[in-house]
Amino acid sequence: MSGAPYIRVGFLGFGTVGSGAYRMLEDNREAIARKVGAEIEVVRIGVRDEAKKRCASPSLLTTDLGSVVDHREIDVIVEAMGGLDPAGELIERALRRGKHVVTANKELIARRGAELVGLAARQGLDLHYEAAVGGGIPLIQPIKHQLAGNDILRMAGILNGTTNLILSRMTDEGEPLETVLAEAQGKGYAEADPSSDVDGHDVQFKLAILSSVAFGKAVRPEQIYREGIRGIEQADIAYAKTLGYVIKLLGIVEAVEGGSILGRVHPTLLPKAHPLAAVGGVYNALCLRGDFVGDVTFMGRGAGGEATGSAVVGDLIDVCRNMRIGGSGDAAPFSGEANARPIEELTSAYYVRVVVPDRPLVLGAIATIFGRRNVSLSAMEMRVIDTKLNHGEIAFLTHRCLEADLRQAVEELRHAPEVLRVCNWIRVETL
Amino acid sequence: MSGAPYIRVGFLGFGTVGSGAYRMLEDNREAIARKVGAEIEVVRIGVRDEAKKRCASPSLLTTDLGSVVDHREIDVIVEAMGGLDPAGELIERALRRGKHVVTANKELIARRGAELVGLAARQGLDLHYEAAVGGGIPLIQPIKHQLAGNDILRMAGILNGTTNLILSRMTDEGEPLETVLAEAQGKGYAEADPSSDVDGHDVQFKLAILSSVAFGKAVRPEQIYREGIRGIEQADIAYAKTLGYVIKLLGIVEAVEGGSILGRVHPTLLPKAHPLAAVGGVYNALCLRGDFVGDVTFMGRGAGGEATGSAVVGDLIDVCRNMRIGGSGDAAPFSGEANARPIEELTSAYYVRVVVPDRPLVLGAIATIFGRRNVSLSAMEMRVIDTKLNHGEIAFLTHRCLEADLRQAVEELRHAPEVLRVCNWIRVETL
Repeated sequence: MSGAPYIRVGFLGFGTVGSGAYRMLEDNREAIARKVGAEIEVVRIGVRDEAKKRCASPSLLTTDLGSVVDHREIDVIVEAMGGLDPAGELIERALRRGKHVVTANKELIARRGAELVGLAARQGLDLHYEAAVGGGIPLIQPIKHQLAGNDILRMAGILNGTTNLILSRMTDEGEPLETVLAEAQGKGYAEADPSSDVDGHDVQFKLAILSSVAFGKAVRPEQIYREGIRGIEQADIAYAKTLGYVIKLLGIVEAVEGGSILGRVHPTLLPKAHPLAAVGGVYNALCLRGDFVGDVTFMGRGAGGEATGSAVVGDLIDVCRNMRIGGSGDAAPFSGEANARPIEELTSAYYVRVVVPDRPLVLGAIATIFGRRNVSLSAMEMRVIDTKLNHGEIAFLTHRCLEADLRQAVEELRHAPEVLRVCNWIRVETL
Repeated sequence: MSGAPYIRVGFLGFGTVGSGAYRMLEDNREAIARKVGAEIEVVRIGVRDEAKKRCASPSLLTTDLGSVVDHREIDVIVEAMGGLDPAGELIERALRRGKHVVTANKELIARRGAELVGLAARQGLDLHYEAAVGGGIPLIQPIKHQLAGNDILRMAGILNGTTNLILSRMTDEGEPLETVLAEAQGKGYAEADPSSDVDGHDVQFKLAILSSVAFGKAVRPEQIYREGIRGIEQADIAYAKTLGYVIKLLGIVEAVEGGSILGRVHPTLLPKAHPLAAVGGVYNALCLRGDFVGDVTFMGRGAGGEATGSAVVGDLIDVCRNMRIGGSGDAAPFSGEANARPIEELTSAYYVRVVVPDRPLVLGAIATIFGRRNVSLSAMEMRVIDTKLNHGEIAFLTHRCLEADLRQAVEELRHAPEVLRVCNWIRVETL
């Protein structure tokens, strides 16, 4: 490629994702140069700690992050630091200085995507963020391009590898959440503070990004209902199994009447034949339904430096090709804010587990409470859990009903003399 | 969108795919115009029979196909006629006249893709063909863009809905191929002449296209080994099931040493836990392995006017956006021809079914024939099939071995006195 033009790139952050992308650029240098029609040269890498051992030459490293975005010769900034600040302010500064940006930062794009995409569009620059959702799986660009003719009706995905691993282990090994979580933390699969994963914040960010792209309107994370996996007990997993389901943490968003959306993150009972039910371990997957294309499923490694680095480099190659042929600046800004409906308006099937005194009339009383709220039952499993106290446990599945009605029924069950305890209730995905 | 620019499009062919794309452009007109930043207007539609009832205004129709590609105001040609001629010559003419092209024509791209992509590149025009493979599933563009940083190591896919449906029905209903095929023909899922599907030509074309895109070198269909599903009997499906497998028609291509590839289309025993094993009916799916991204799977509807039309419109939206922002002409030409290795160099596991006299020493003799050719056995199933003649049937699974060795072993089995008949042998995909 001697004589080929150079495109100069600056990195911000050089952790798992940044160094993964860097190694890919090194390992596959020739093939990438052929695809771009230019050599991609990383000329500066902004890091927090210059002394740490890295796979890049120490001469490239600097702790002066501003000097990377201000560097005159740099055409493209790769941001792989994560977090809102200083990443956001650095990306803004890079765009204002005429540099294209590739970022893997889900929190930043979820919170400030509309604003930054708008800025990039006004500047005629590319701002790509494929790596922010689903690791190495192509999701954002296929929705923006190959599926662009569709009205997206619905998306449902497993978007967090850590919680998927935890739930898979709980299912396979019968251990409680605390044990499995501690093990995952020990092996480095889960953070010391697991809240971002376990409480669903990570999925909420990712679903906000996917929703914004799919529906073309800015969706804020707070517009998506969120519930984590801390409440899931072994009993729920066991009843789900008996009833033909597995429990997964899903992000789901649907287009609802009047151009609104209803987005939600929560543990979900999935029928075993559902395409997402077999997605195990750290894999991620997304099922999307378009009005013309029908159902499309994407699956792959949702985290890790190599897979996420692959998405960063894919974006970088696109940005560089666009620079070369003069097609930059298609960062289609979102057209206003989405109108999001509250979770109470959801129509879904549900799983409800209660502890009851094992005596006549109890089941009838419970069924009547459900029935009065228009909640119709489709299946149930009972077992005696305490022969001394004569306590039984019942797991119900309902037909599809309005969440507001289900919530009222659960509230009434909590106060009904025939019910000792409502242990849990979980939404159920139908095929 | 009043005042927005117009981009004028001409259609060649208005069958299932063409009319599906047209309806999508009509139904989702506003959203598409917003994404493109311009109105897409179909101004002429070339058809074979002007009198046939269509979903488009008769005033748009013409049987003079040349007048569509020669039309002065048309910027983009959508070719959905299929077949080599006159589609190829019309596309060439369109490119020479400076018109971008979107095509769904797998045979044409498989046979003349390198040449036409080269012409488009020299002309600075877009030539997109996402719809040629996998119906509505985004495959070609994600490989060219989001996965572009990867060395692709391997792809394996279910790329023909008709044969997948036939094999699914044979498995579920226990009927022989002829019965299921006749039923599929009656319902319009299979052609009157089913050879393109049943003998694997369709998959061979699609795999040639995917391989060319993934490896960046032109792969001709003839460079891909091909074997159809006509030889599959109920006995094979039954033994496969007992051994934990399902039989699917797969297209598989691998990068092998020295920059060569080995591509092949044939019925395959798939372990039930394989991501492709659950892909039923008319669905298509592709598993791709990249050196950084790892395994990625794409699944969706592989045929039908709406799904394939979705891919055509996705391409058309991209072409129009590129026109608007000036980024056309990234039809990366292939760098030379691929070097393809013959099937005899394949390393794979195999299934072999034989009929034998049910008497001592037979199994030992067979195992010795395998063993002398370095073929090691991993599992077997036996049953008596004729108590009067005292005939037995054995299905063997081998460990991975060289196909040349397996073929020699099979040849020796055919002539061995201990073997009455070699019924079938099929390649086996491992997890």
